[in-house]
Amino acid sequence: MNSGWKITKEGKEPNLDNPIFIEGLPGIGNVGKIATDFLIEEFKAKKLYSFFSYKFPHSVFVNEENLVEMPKIEIYYKKFNGKNGKNKKRDLLLLTGDIQPIDEESCYTFCEEVLKIVQHHKCSEMITTGGIGLQQVPDHPKVYCTSNDKKLYEDYVKKDVLIEKDIFGTVGPIVGASGVLLGLGKMHKVKGVSLLAETFGHPMYLGIKGAKEILRAIEKRFNYGINLEKMSKEIIEVEKELMKKTKEWATEITSSTQAGAKGKDEETSYIG
Amino acid sequence: MNSGWKITKEGKEPNLDNPIFIEGLPGIGNVGKIATDFLIEEFKAKKLYSFFSYKFPHSVFVNEENLVEMPKIEIYYKKFNGKNGKNKKRDLLLLTGDIQPIDEESCYTFCEEVLKIVQHHKCSEMITTGGIGLQQVPDHPKVYCTSNDKKLYEDYVKKDVLIEKDIFGTVGPIVGASGVLLGLGKMHKVKGVSLLAETFGHPMYLGIKGAKEILRAIEKRFNYGINLEKMSKEIIEVEKELMKKTKEWATEITSSTQAGAKGKDEETSYIG
Amino acid sequence: MNSGWKITKEGKEPNLDNPIFIEGLPGIGNVGKIATDFLIEEFKAKKLYSFFSYKFPHSVFVNEENLVEMPKIEIYYKKFNGKNGKNKKRDLLLLTGDIQPIDEESCYTFCEEVLKIVQHHKCSEMITTGGIGLQQVPDHPKVYCTSNDKKLYEDYVKKDVLIEKDIFGTVGPIVGASGVLLGLGKMHKVKGVSLLAETFGHPMYLGIKGAKEILRAIEKRFNYGINLEKMSKEIIEVEKELMKKTKEWATEITSSTQAGAKGKDEETSYIG
Amino acid sequence: MNSGWKITKEGKEPNLDNPIFIEGLPGIGNVGKIATDFLIEEFKAKKLYSFFSYKFPHSVFVNEENLVEMPKIEIYYKKFNGKNGKNKKRDLLLLTGDIQPIDEESCYTFCEEVLKIVQHHKCSEMITTGGIGLQQVPDHPKVYCTSNDKKLYEDYVKKDVLIEKDIFGTVGPIVGASGVLLGLGKMHKVKGVSLLAETFGHPMYLGIKGAKEILRAIEKRFNYGINLEKMSKEIIEVEKELMKKTKEWATEITSSTQAGAKGKDEETSYIG
Repeated sequence: MNSGWKITKEGKEPNLDNPIFIEGLPGIGNVGKIATDFLIEEFKAKKLYSFFSYKFPHSVFVNEENLVEMPKIEIYYKKFNGKNGKNKKRDLLLLTGDIQPIDEESCYTFCEEVLKIVQHHKCSEMITTGGIGLQQVPDHPKVYCTSNDKKLYEDYVKKDVLIEKDIFGTVGPIVGASGVLLGLGKMHKVKGVSLLAETFGHPMYLGIKGAKEILRAIEKRFNYGINLEKMSKEIIEVEKELMKKTKEWATEITSSTQAGAKGKDEETSYIG
Repeated sequence: MNSGWKITKEGKEPNLDNPIFIEGLPGIGNVGKIATDFLIEEFKAKKLYSFFSYKFPHSVFVNEENLVEMPKIEIYYKKFNGKNGKNKKRDLLLLTGDIQPIDEESCYTFCEEVLKIVQHHKCSEMITTGGIGLQQVPDHPKVYCTSNDKKLYEDYVKKDVLIEKDIFGTVGPIVGASGVLLGLGKMHKVKGVSLLAETFGHPMYLGIKGAKEILRAIEKRFNYGINLEKMSKEIIEVEKELMKKTKEWATEITSSTQAGAKGKDEETSYIG
Repeated sequence: MNSGWKITKEGKEPNLDNPIFIEGLPGIGNVGKIATDFLIEEFKAKKLYSFFSYKFPHSVFVNEENLVEMPKIEIYYKKFNGKNGKNKKRDLLLLTGDIQPIDEESCYTFCEEVLKIVQHHKCSEMITTGGIGLQQVPDHPKVYCTSNDKKLYEDYVKKDVLIEKDIFGTVGPIVGASGVLLGLGKMHKVKGVSLLAETFGHPMYLGIKGAKEILRAIEKRFNYGINLEKMSKEIIEVEKELMKKTKEWATEITSSTQAGAKGKDEETSYIG
Repeated sequence: MNSGWKITKEGKEPNLDNPIFIEGLPGIGNVGKIATDFLIEEFKAKKLYSFFSYKFPHSVFVNEENLVEMPKIEIYYKKFNGKNGKNKKRDLLLLTGDIQPIDEESCYTFCEEVLKIVQHHKCSEMITTGGIGLQQVPDHPKVYCTSNDKKLYEDYVKKDVLIEKDIFGTVGPIVGASGVLLGLGKMHKVKGVSLLAETFGHPMYLGIKGAKEILRAIEKRFNYGINLEKMSKEIIEVEKELMKKTKEWATEITSSTQAGAKGKDEETSYIG
């Protein structure tokens, strides 16, 4: 645990074929997490790595079985069967989790570990995802793109009319793993883009619409056959339930809490 | 002092028989600490380990003898004489203290050290204790249970009607050693439960009623012959005095204080 | 990366002739950064070292090409051709950047690394630059001087009537690399002065006037032929654009931000 | 610099005769610092050790010569000539400084280093000094005593009627080096007391009266011939000037400051 990160591998390592890496950790509107979790669910992706660090929040969560769970950061993979055919899909590595690394240094050391995995599996392309917090709910959230590589950036904005070309001047710094993976990626010659969807910057807002637009852009480029129709009203209810855990971690991290547990007197419901 | 923790052993190590480990560090309502300190007092448990760390508050307390004391975290043990008989009681390891580890990392490294001790003494069962902070004083505080092991959890809620079965949805994350001991315990295959009693979330409230309910649940399961009647009005006065130290550490940690001492112009009395 | 700093050298190391080292990292009014960036621009100085640390802000910036950039701290050099002649100019090492080291310890370790470079290139004189924050815009900003060496200090205030002699009682502690480079410099026997210009202490104020006065003092002492007339209204507009990045890093560091990006709903314009 | 502390010895080490160690770092009312600085001044004590750490404030101070100074923590010594005679005085080691160690861990590592020095010089008795912050100016500040050794405590309160016997219940935790030196001292079998004088808890108050009472208690026990009459109105003016530096460090540490210097628009005068 030299870098401060303990990484546990689950089962045998798959032999992935030209995989794409997609990151979707919690953040503004949880846009990236919603998109990535949806892909994991849809493609029945399998867990491959779990991350743990002493810089995690020092608390546990009670799950539906009344058992404790530590916060999770995990990488899943999806191996598609198609080989060399016209409709062949590129395999996937998917990073999701309940939390973001807690501070500057642990964000950097975490992203270094992730990049080692990305390079180990010979991913030639990373997609990090996230939200752009607006001060009101966007009717039709736009998706913006930035990259650590000029050619890759042009590829994304050329091929796919669904992505806004000009992000400069539109957003401030990109905070967290979505930004740092690209920054450190450049140092390690791992190319990647960040797809950022507009969303409402309110802490209780679930950016499902924005997540849908990110998935639409990914679908347009890679033809995975993502069923975007599923991202309807029904999923919103499911997501609201699932996201409670993520929200509670976020609250716990930002407020200095006394040891013990807080009773849920007031229901904290998501808007979305 | 590699992990940041210096552990001092007092006297010869006892040969404990199938011991139970109970944790009761300060927290909401100090429910867990009150319960554990009561057991130490009642069973005349002996001090076995003292913990010290440079991450402790950088201050000392003046005790009744007008002498300085550093903050303490200690493990006591109780060896019962009964052998193989019908009424045989399982031995006890009891963790108490004036403070909680100060931050995320020191909480994790502390719990790792505690788990080593728990494993060294072949404890097959841990009980961590704490409070669930409500926004009013509960008349009849309920005790909730969560665990890092499904079978153990079912054992607790089946056998003992005094424990609420459903905690999911009732509490937010369990912060501090009570939660992390279970979380890390699962990684190290040490089974445990957390018994959490409802209490008033006010910083000056002493959760004696909640502590009593936790002890009642422990008594129901293990038949230690705990004299719950002693937890009466009288003990409340004693506890109020004893808890002042704990309260002052808590205050000192949360407020950034100038070097020196603060005069006690205003008496800070506990409610309870 | 033992000290926490990774230093990358660009190209072949120049053989500098009796160089002066000038520091101009962000700070009050960005006075020092504006002055130093102007010298880099004017003299077409070349990049020599880049600094990186895991204690940098964990975020990236989107540049004019819509590509991500990590925060930068860099040293440039200028080799003048003149040799031994009457008009010979001393070579320059120029330290600039988007950010200051994030905390006490990283400021000290950073300055130690910079001092190694300063000594490696046999700089006999360091100039650190910065602002003195006033509560109103100064009409004619004065430049004050302090030093880690009595003789060097007297040299500066004797030769150059543009510099105020008495700084004691005028300013509080000098915070950041401008101060620490002199403090640690004294320990390592590297002589230096700090030139501090009065400026408006408002976070959105660009201390261009103050920067001009610092450059005037440097010009007076070293006769570099700095074209101070260029520091006119026109440059103000350019600077305002360039400084946005610096300002955004500063904002990002001081506010605890959720992962993701913030939309620029409100234009944040500089005064100056 | 393993412990994070760099200690520089000045000149040859004196052979001290049964020395007393007195600590007086900044704190509430700066009571301890004023008392200790007075002894250094009066006895013309010589500097023996300087302390430095990367956890010092990352800033420098401009002194009366217009030169920069880093914050200082220093130990002075006083060797008295008297040998074996009736009026023989015990030698002194005196710890003073501009700042306190910045956080929990650096306070502990600092005190460990100080205790090594105390043991190296075979000091059999430590006196730490400080203030007890009241909510109003005390007319006749009382001096309280606590200790890490029962016998030493009794010795102080028996022999010297000027010291209050009962401190328990009067003060909260003793924060900073004054407390931790006693706490760690006990672990290392170094006996010591803390003399704490009542003072006004206001950040701009200079606790000269309290300092005088501490010196009176020291004089009573050790008969150094301290000239308490000098602690008059006149010294107050000198102290006010000298203490400005201490106050500015304190301000700088507690407020998050932008790099650069702050102009002194408003005079910050001490009350006292």
